[in-house]
Amino acid sequence: MERTHENGTLRLSDAGTEVVLVGWVAKRRNLGSLVFIDLRDRSGIVQITFDETTAAKVKDVRSEYVLQVRGTVQKRSAVNLKMPTGEIEVLAQDVVIINSAKTPPITIADDTDTNEDTRLRYRYLDLRRSVLQKNLILRHRICMIARQTLDELGFIEVETPILARSTPEGARDYLVPSRIYNGKFWALPQSPQIYKQLLMIGGMEKYFQIARCFRDEDLRADRQPEFTQIDIEMSFRDEDAIFAVVEKLMQNIFAGTVNYKLEDRFVRIKYRDAIAKYGTDKPDLRFGNEINDLSELFADTEFQVFRTVLDNGGMIGAVKFENIADRYSRKGLDKLQEFVRHGFKAKALAYLKMEKGVLTGSIAKPLSDAEKQAVIEKLALTDNDLVLVIADTPKVSLSALGALRVRIAHECDLIPAETMYKFAWITEFPMFEYSEEEGRWVASHHPFTAVNEADVDKLFTDPGNVSSRAYDLVLNGYELLSGSIRIHDQDLQEKVFEAIGLTMEEAKERFGFFLEAFKYGTPPHGGVGIGLERLTMVLAGTDNIRDVVAFPTTNSSLDLMSDAPNVVDEKQLQVLGIKIDE
Amino acid sequence: MERTHENGTLRLSDAGTEVVLVGWVAKRRNLGSLVFIDLRDRSGIVQITFDETTAAKVKDVRSEYVLQVRGTVQKRSAVNLKMPTGEIEVLAQDVVIINSAKTPPITIADDTDTNEDTRLRYRYLDLRRSVLQKNLILRHRICMIARQTLDELGFIEVETPILARSTPEGARDYLVPSRIYNGKFWALPQSPQIYKQLLMIGGMEKYFQIARCFRDEDLRADRQPEFTQIDIEMSFRDEDAIFAVVEKLMQNIFAGTVNYKLEDRFVRIKYRDAIAKYGTDKPDLRFGNEINDLSELFADTEFQVFRTVLDNGGMIGAVKFENIADRYSRKGLDKLQEFVRHGFKAKALAYLKMEKGVLTGSIAKPLSDAEKQAVIEKLALTDNDLVLVIADTPKVSLSALGALRVRIAHECDLIPAETMYKFAWITEFPMFEYSEEEGRWVASHHPFTAVNEADVDKLFTDPGNVSSRAYDLVLNGYELLSGSIRIHDQDLQEKVFEAIGLTMEEAKERFGFFLEAFKYGTPPHGGVGIGLERLTMVLAGTDNIRDVVAFPTTNSSLDLMSDAPNVVDEKQLQVLGIKIDE
Repeated sequence: MERTHENGTLRLSDAGTEVVLVGWVAKRRNLGSLVFIDLRDRSGIVQITFDETTAAKVKDVRSEYVLQVRGTVQKRSAVNLKMPTGEIEVLAQDVVIINSAKTPPITIADDTDTNEDTRLRYRYLDLRRSVLQKNLILRHRICMIARQTLDELGFIEVETPILARSTPEGARDYLVPSRIYNGKFWALPQSPQIYKQLLMIGGMEKYFQIARCFRDEDLRADRQPEFTQIDIEMSFRDEDAIFAVVEKLMQNIFAGTVNYKLEDRFVRIKYRDAIAKYGTDKPDLRFGNEINDLSELFADTEFQVFRTVLDNGGMIGAVKFENIADRYSRKGLDKLQEFVRHGFKAKALAYLKMEKGVLTGSIAKPLSDAEKQAVIEKLALTDNDLVLVIADTPKVSLSALGALRVRIAHECDLIPAETMYKFAWITEFPMFEYSEEEGRWVASHHPFTAVNEADVDKLFTDPGNVSSRAYDLVLNGYELLSGSIRIHDQDLQEKVFEAIGLTMEEAKERFGFFLEAFKYGTPPHGGVGIGLERLTMVLAGTDNIRDVVAFPTTNSSLDLMSDAPNVVDEKQLQVLGIKIDE
Repeated sequence: MERTHENGTLRLSDAGTEVVLVGWVAKRRNLGSLVFIDLRDRSGIVQITFDETTAAKVKDVRSEYVLQVRGTVQKRSAVNLKMPTGEIEVLAQDVVIINSAKTPPITIADDTDTNEDTRLRYRYLDLRRSVLQKNLILRHRICMIARQTLDELGFIEVETPILARSTPEGARDYLVPSRIYNGKFWALPQSPQIYKQLLMIGGMEKYFQIARCFRDEDLRADRQPEFTQIDIEMSFRDEDAIFAVVEKLMQNIFAGTVNYKLEDRFVRIKYRDAIAKYGTDKPDLRFGNEINDLSELFADTEFQVFRTVLDNGGMIGAVKFENIADRYSRKGLDKLQEFVRHGFKAKALAYLKMEKGVLTGSIAKPLSDAEKQAVIEKLALTDNDLVLVIADTPKVSLSALGALRVRIAHECDLIPAETMYKFAWITEFPMFEYSEEEGRWVASHHPFTAVNEADVDKLFTDPGNVSSRAYDLVLNGYELLSGSIRIHDQDLQEKVFEAIGLTMEEAKERFGFFLEAFKYGTPPHGGVGIGLERLTMVLAGTDNIRDVVAFPTTNSSLDLMSDAPNVVDEKQLQVLGIKIDE
C-alpha cells in the first residue's frame, strides 16, 4: 500500500479515484458515528471521512498522529471554499496508524497563537505550519532560479572555505581554536570577499556562490549569526555588465516565484542625487514626492528662522503631497513634528496647506506674499496639497524629509497597488568618510573599492568628495545588495592607502598575502553580494527573518531548540589548548 | 573595445573574423621581427601573432601580464594539433596592456613541476592551470545536475545551521566560543544528520542540501577539515525509493559530465555476501574473480595445514584468475606472499597453477589426487589459470583474498576497458559491533538506524547477528555514500538503546531534545549522504582531494596561502572569555 497522491492536490476532478494518502492529523471531529480527520502533508490538507465501518479504527487517534489512509475521493456535501481541496473529501476504506504523537505544546496552524519562543523551542513542530513550509520552498525556488540563471550566463559556483584566516580588525569574526596548532585560530568568514577576488586573480572570470556568512554582531532584530549571500564576481567587465547580470537574475526570480514582471533595466541614481531627492541612499521609488530644495527661493527671505538657517549653511527642504492636506489635522501634524524631532533631531517641522487657492499653515504668516506665490508656482500646488518643510542643516533636513516621505506614503496609501516592486541602482557612493574616532579618513566600503576616475586627482586634496565605483541595489526602500568595482591597479591602490593614512608597510601587515596576490596579473573585476534572507523576506511578504530560516536563533543569538551555545567538556577544551577565562 | 570571443573557442571556421580577446600571457616567443604570445583565458589558449606594426607594443610584456587584443583570426601556417585552437592564430591589430605581473613563483602549466606546497601557497596562481579550472567547473556541473535532478523529484534544498550544538561525544567537533555567552560554545556540524531528521519530523518529506561538513580529524591524506556532502532525506518511503533517487542522480551526473550511461538499476549485495565473495564491503565489481570457500571440499583433508585451520574454525579461501599463471613467477608470488603477510597478518599464501592439465604449485604436493581433481572441477580450471589460496581465520582469509583480487586485477589488466564505472548497493550492514575498549556492543552506524525487522528478536540474544537497514553505495571499490532507514518507532528505539547498554535516562542525557522531537508524530524516513569531493575525484580521474577543492589545506590542516590558522589578538580572546592554556 504505497502513497498514490499528495493530500493538497486532490480536486473535484479526482472524484471516484481510489487513493492512498499519508500525513499528520491536523484536526479531528466526531459527528455521531462519523469521524472527520483533516490530514496534512507538505502539499496541504484534505478531509478524510471515516464512516461506521472505519471510525472505530481511528478512535484513539489524536492530533499529529501519522496515518496512512486508503479511500475514495468523493464530492463533499458541504463545500469549504477556504480550502483548495474543499470541494472533496476522501471516504476511508482502510487506515494504518503509522505513529502516535504526544499532545503538541504549540498550536500548529498558520494563525498560531503560541508565542515565538515556545515555537522556536519546538521548531520541528512549528515547521509543520504551511506558511513556514511555503517560505522554505520559496527560498529553495529562489536559489534554484539564481543558480540556473547564473549558470546559463557562464558563472561557475565555487565553494570557498568556512575555516578561514582571522583578519586583524576581526572584532566581528567567530573564532575556531585549532586542536592541531594550539594557540592558533581559524575564523568564520564574514563574506567570501577575499576568496572571490582571489578567484578572479586565479582566472575564474565569472564566479558565484550561494555562501554562508558569519557575523558576530550585537543583538539586532533582523540579523542572525549566520546568513546567506548570493555572491557574484566577474572579471574584465564594468558596471553595465554586472548590473545586467543582476537585473536578469532579479527578473527571473520575481517572474519564477511571484509571477511579477520587472522592468528590463533598473533605474540608476547617483548617490548624491538619491540623498538630494529622497534624503536616503535607500529610496523607495514606488512613489514620487521628491524633496525640493527651496533654499534659493528663500535666498533673500526676511523670515528670521529661514534667514538664520540659510546664513549658517543650512537648507530649506520641502516635500509636496498632493490632495491629502485635509487628512492631517493639527494633531496629526504634531505627531509628524514629534517624529522628526525625536528620530532626526530636526529643530522643527513646518507645513503649508493649499486651501481654496490660499496657502495656510504654520509658516503662512511669516512668509511674504511673493514668497508664498513663488512656492505655489515652484511646487505647482493645487487645492488640498500638503507641503512639509524642514529648515535645518542639509543632513537633518534631507534625512527627516526622506523619512516623512515614506511615512506619509504608507499612512495615505500613496504607493500604487500595481507597483509592487521598484528597483534602483544607487551608484557613485563616497569613497571615504571621516572617522571622528580615528581622526582620519577611512574607506566607506573597503579600501579595495575602485575610485571614480574623474575623482582620482581629489584623493589628497578633497577626499570627502571622491566618489567610488561602489553601488547598491535598493528595492522598495531596502538595500538588497551592495557591491563595487575593485581596484586592480597597484599604483591606485597605493594612493588609496596613502589617502587613508596607511603606508604600504602597514597595509602589508594588515592585508598580507592578499596584496601580494594582486601583483601577479590581476584582471579588472567587480561584483555584488545579495542578502538571500532579505530577498526571501520581500518575496514572502514577511518582516521576520525567522520566517525564512529553517532553524533560526532568537534575537539574542540563542538556539532554543537544541539549547546552543552550550557548555562543553573540560576535556574538549584541553585538547584545543584553551581555558575559560573566569 | 569589449571582448567579443573566448580564446579557447576559436576555430578555423572563425578565420577572417575580427575579434577582441582578453587574458593572461601564458607564453611569449620572439621570432625575428615577429612576437608570438599564447593568450590564456578560462576557455583555453590561443596564439596571437604580433607583426612588425604591433610587436613594439608588447616588447615589455612578460608572463602573466593581462592583455586585451584586437585582431583577426587567420589560418595558421604551422598547425599545432595538440591545441584545440591549433589550426588558427590571431593577427594582432591593437593591444592594451591591462595589467603587469611579477614573475610567477610557480610554473603555470598542466604539467607543472613546482612542488605542491609552493603551489598551495600561491593557490591563486595555481588555479590558472586549466586542469584545476576544469575540475572546479566539473564540481559545479555535478552540483547543478544534482540540484536539478532532486528539484525535479520534489526535493527541497534547506540550509541547516553551521553554528550548531556540540554533542557529548564531540571529540571531533570544531568549537566556536560564544562572545555573548562566555563559557559556552557552538560546534560546527559533522553532518546535517540531526537537522535533516528534524526536518522530516517537521513535515518537509523530501529534503536535500549540498552541505558543508566539518570534522576535526587527525591527519589523513584524503581528508580536509571541511568537506561537502550531497545530503538527502525522505519520509514515508523505503530503500527502494531512496535507491531509485540516488540511481537517477548518478545516472544524470555521469551522463551530464563524462557522457557515460550507467545501468538503469544498480546491483544490490547484502553485506554478508559482499564479505563472503569479495572480502570487503567496498567491492570493486568491474571484474569477477570472486572468493570461493573450499572449506567443505577439504572437510576430510589429511593435509595437516588445512586440517589445523579447519579444526580451529578457519576457512580455506581461494580465488581463481584465468589464464595468467605464466605471469607470476616464484618471485612475483613471493611479493604477493609478503603483501598478505604484512598487510593482512595472513600466515601464508598458497597457490596452484594449471599447467598442461596438471595442477602444480606450492600445495600441489600435499593434496591428494582426489582433492586436486575436486578443486579443478569446483573452480572449472583450464590451462594457465592461477589459484591463490589462503587458509586462515575467515576474517584474515577473506580480507587478504579480497585485497589480492583487486591487486591482481590491476597488475594484469583484468578490468574491461568498457566498464569504467560499476556501482553496487551494499545492504543489511551489521547493526552492532563489539567494542573491546568499552566492553559492550555499540551501534555500527548510529543508534537511530532501523533494525531489520526479521532480526528484532535477536536484539538481546544475538546482537552480533542483527542486521540493520544501513546501506552504502560503492563505486569501483570506493564508498561513495552511506545512509540508512532511521528508527521512527519509540519502542524499537528504546530496545536498541537497551541493547547497547543505555538506559532511557542516559539516552536522554546524551541525545536530549532530539529524542523528545521523536515523540510528536515522526514519519518513517531515511536518507543518504554523498561525499561530493570523492564523487568529483572519481569523475575528474584524480586521487588528490586538493585537485577538486578551490582553496584546500595541506594534509596537516594548514592553509599555506593565507597562513591559517593563525594567532589572534589578545583582545579578541578577552571578549570571547577564553585564554590560551599555556
